[in-house]
Amino acid sequence: MSSKEHLSPIEKLNEALNSGELRQVRYTLNNSLRPAEIAHLLDKSPPKERQLLWSLVNKELEGEVLQYLSYDVQADIVSRMDAGELLEVTEGLDTDDLVDLLQQLPERVMRELLQTMDIQNRARVEQVLSYDEDTAGGLMNTDTVTIRPDITVETALRYIRRHKEIPEMTDSLFVVSRRDAFIGVLPLTKLLVSDPDMLVREIMNTDIAPIAATMTDTEVTQLFEQHGLISAPVVDEDGKLLGRITIDDVVDVIREDADHSLMGMAGLGEDADTFAPVLKTTRSRAFWLGINLITAFVASAVIGLFEATIDKVVALAVLMPIVASMGGIAGSQTLTLVIRGQALGHLDRSNAAWLLNRELIAGTINGLLWAAVVAGVAIIWFQDLQIGGIIAAAIVINLLAGALAGTLLPIGLKAAGIDPALAGSVLLTTITDVVGFFAFLGLATYFYG
Amino acid sequence: MSSKEHLSPIEKLNEALNSGELRQVRYTLNNSLRPAEIAHLLDKSPPKERQLLWSLVNKELEGEVLQYLSYDVQADIVSRMDAGELLEVTEGLDTDDLVDLLQQLPERVMRELLQTMDIQNRARVEQVLSYDEDTAGGLMNTDTVTIRPDITVETALRYIRRHKEIPEMTDSLFVVSRRDAFIGVLPLTKLLVSDPDMLVREIMNTDIAPIAATMTDTEVTQLFEQHGLISAPVVDEDGKLLGRITIDDVVDVIREDADHSLMGMAGLGEDADTFAPVLKTTRSRAFWLGINLITAFVASAVIGLFEATIDKVVALAVLMPIVASMGGIAGSQTLTLVIRGQALGHLDRSNAAWLLNRELIAGTINGLLWAAVVAGVAIIWFQDLQIGGIIAAAIVINLLAGALAGTLLPIGLKAAGIDPALAGSVLLTTITDVVGFFAFLGLATYFYG
Repeated sequence: MSSKEHLSPIEKLNEALNSGELRQVRYTLNNSLRPAEIAHLLDKSPPKERQLLWSLVNKELEGEVLQYLSYDVQADIVSRMDAGELLEVTEGLDTDDLVDLLQQLPERVMRELLQTMDIQNRARVEQVLSYDEDTAGGLMNTDTVTIRPDITVETALRYIRRHKEIPEMTDSLFVVSRRDAFIGVLPLTKLLVSDPDMLVREIMNTDIAPIAATMTDTEVTQLFEQHGLISAPVVDEDGKLLGRITIDDVVDVIREDADHSLMGMAGLGEDADTFAPVLKTTRSRAFWLGINLITAFVASAVIGLFEATIDKVVALAVLMPIVASMGGIAGSQTLTLVIRGQALGHLDRSNAAWLLNRELIAGTINGLLWAAVVAGVAIIWFQDLQIGGIIAAAIVINLLAGALAGTLLPIGLKAAGIDPALAGSVLLTTITDVVGFFAFLGLATYFYG
Repeated sequence: MSSKEHLSPIEKLNEALNSGELRQVRYTLNNSLRPAEIAHLLDKSPPKERQLLWSLVNKELEGEVLQYLSYDVQADIVSRMDAGELLEVTEGLDTDDLVDLLQQLPERVMRELLQTMDIQNRARVEQVLSYDEDTAGGLMNTDTVTIRPDITVETALRYIRRHKEIPEMTDSLFVVSRRDAFIGVLPLTKLLVSDPDMLVREIMNTDIAPIAATMTDTEVTQLFEQHGLISAPVVDEDGKLLGRITIDDVVDVIREDADHSLMGMAGLGEDADTFAPVLKTTRSRAFWLGINLITAFVASAVIGLFEATIDKVVALAVLMPIVASMGGIAGSQTLTLVIRGQALGHLDRSNAAWLLNRELIAGTINGLLWAAVVAGVAIIWFQDLQIGGIIAAAIVINLLAGALAGTLLPIGLKAAGIDPALAGSVLLTTITDVVGFFAFLGLATYFYG
């Protein structure tokens, strides 16, 4: 189809990999691809190819490639290295990326690695390590460029020119006191357009409060989005400048948070490696299947209560999954909307009642609508008016149960400190299955029994 | 509990809103909150409060607030305005934000609004409008700062100082020819540390290709993440600089893409307003429930085929939801993983076979494991060895069906140009329900019939 000249570097690589020309692969890998592209290639490779490719990456690229890998893949590769290799690979990494790596190591290996660092570097890393991964402190980097408030713009420009280069993602200098207390932010764009004789103090920005090291990473993302930030200072409880957070770290958090909702609702970890080996996959899935099996047995037990009725009217067995399914679908829609609303910070006590009310009304209207349709079909199918009325009533009841559970479950779980994205969908299905079967078969037992 | 002094501006606002002190609300809204915070407050308010709050926002803030609103809420508010109001509100907006708003208007109102703009502004807007919303061209802004390659660093710095201010999110100047052809990028940080006598041409960056206006927004996000960009130039097919994309727009795309998978799988729009009015909610949910009802009827029809068998062995009715449920859960896990993999660009022809194989093996192992458990319970419960064997076989078959459908459905749908996040979960459930009921009841009919 396509001639060889038109292949992208990745396609060429695949071809070389398939034909076993490892020298060709090594060359393309290390000379035509950026570290982020190599990482992407590793992320999308099955285990064997991944190991092979990794072994072909040049030593001096390894550190950079590692920091772009997805979490699970990174953890897997790092876990195969000894402290010596790790030290070599992590040399020259930014503090925040280095800390991300260290957190994946066993305590012993981490300590070993810390011992080998020079004192200044180690102090920096240990400071970041002292904060939780999910806080501003755990997210920050220590590569700030600072200046004093009492120098002129001209002096500031001269001071900056003395740098050989300025760290990536630097859009502002941080103004600090002699004791490193944070005072303000000086955007480079402001510095560039200001009168050279002005003082830094006169042109710096003080209207954005610095980020406390203990702020959660989700709050940090909201702050960045609301203020349109590229980088922001992080301070300790005394206002001392500790480091800075940059937008690339914020983007990672946004991706992780979004993945967490999507993957969590299917019982998968947000860091799940798409190409995890078969045993790892099997083990992680088994747990979720087991949990769901319990809920399936609960539903079966409810059906079991009404065996006699089903024995009498076998049409009930044919129709009962419809009741459970409609309640489950309606409930899942509400649940997903509420979980997303929670993630966006939309839900609090002031509007939860309104939301529940809206869901109940929408559930009632849709319940009546689809109950009528199902009743019509059931009556025609089984030539039985009564069964139509029974299934209609059960569907309305179950859609209301779905609306109620879909709204209150995530709110209750969150208040109890349980992650709604993880536990919500199992619990919801249990409720709509139980209510659905109970309402339908219970009513049937009353009328046919 | 908390004394009034410790309330945040938002809490104060809620209190004032509840007590009906509208003057107080208006004051807090316009003087204590940033436009992004006002937008967040509107996003999380039920319809009536939302309209009331919006009516209290000062005219000159409206435009800024609008651009921070979530899509559905923005569309709702904009749809109530006439061209005159819109013109007032949109004055001073960036081209990209203005275009976002325009795209939500009826054609007639949009044309009317374009007529009222000055020629230069209109030309800019029409250029961005000419590109699809989901492309680099539709995403870009036209507020670039450009310089020529043959001036010195010193001249460049003097030229920049003549600006009163530089547009937000400007981390680089774009180097262009006399005819506006894109030549390279000059990061401000580079400009600040370079020798004043060097030429722009000598220090500019040419290793990152400019973005073609037709590139999809998802590709743009990958480019930004792989190269750690804050802003990037957009060019037309002749290499002429059209504008630039900034990281804040990229973050919006990342959020939208992630929301699309999560919300799509529950049949909700990614832009769904958490506090949409009841009728809008009811209507949008009704469609999804209707689609799912069809699949539920298909499952019922399968059960209906085996009415005679169920009539004979009523235990089958009790156990059959377990088979369907286990297959559905296992299939959903695979489906979610594959859909996320597709969104991350992990899946292609080279690794799909490996993935399918892994899912089938994991499905078989988990199938055997849980089949044994379910068989054990069923045998004890119903004192019937045969029913244990039948349900075990059906579970293994259905978990394999789940693995197969979970992998192949999203791949096939995507190849057919259908969005897997939207259609995947309904189709998957239909398959696992049909296979589950058919395998279980079919085997039962064979052995008991």
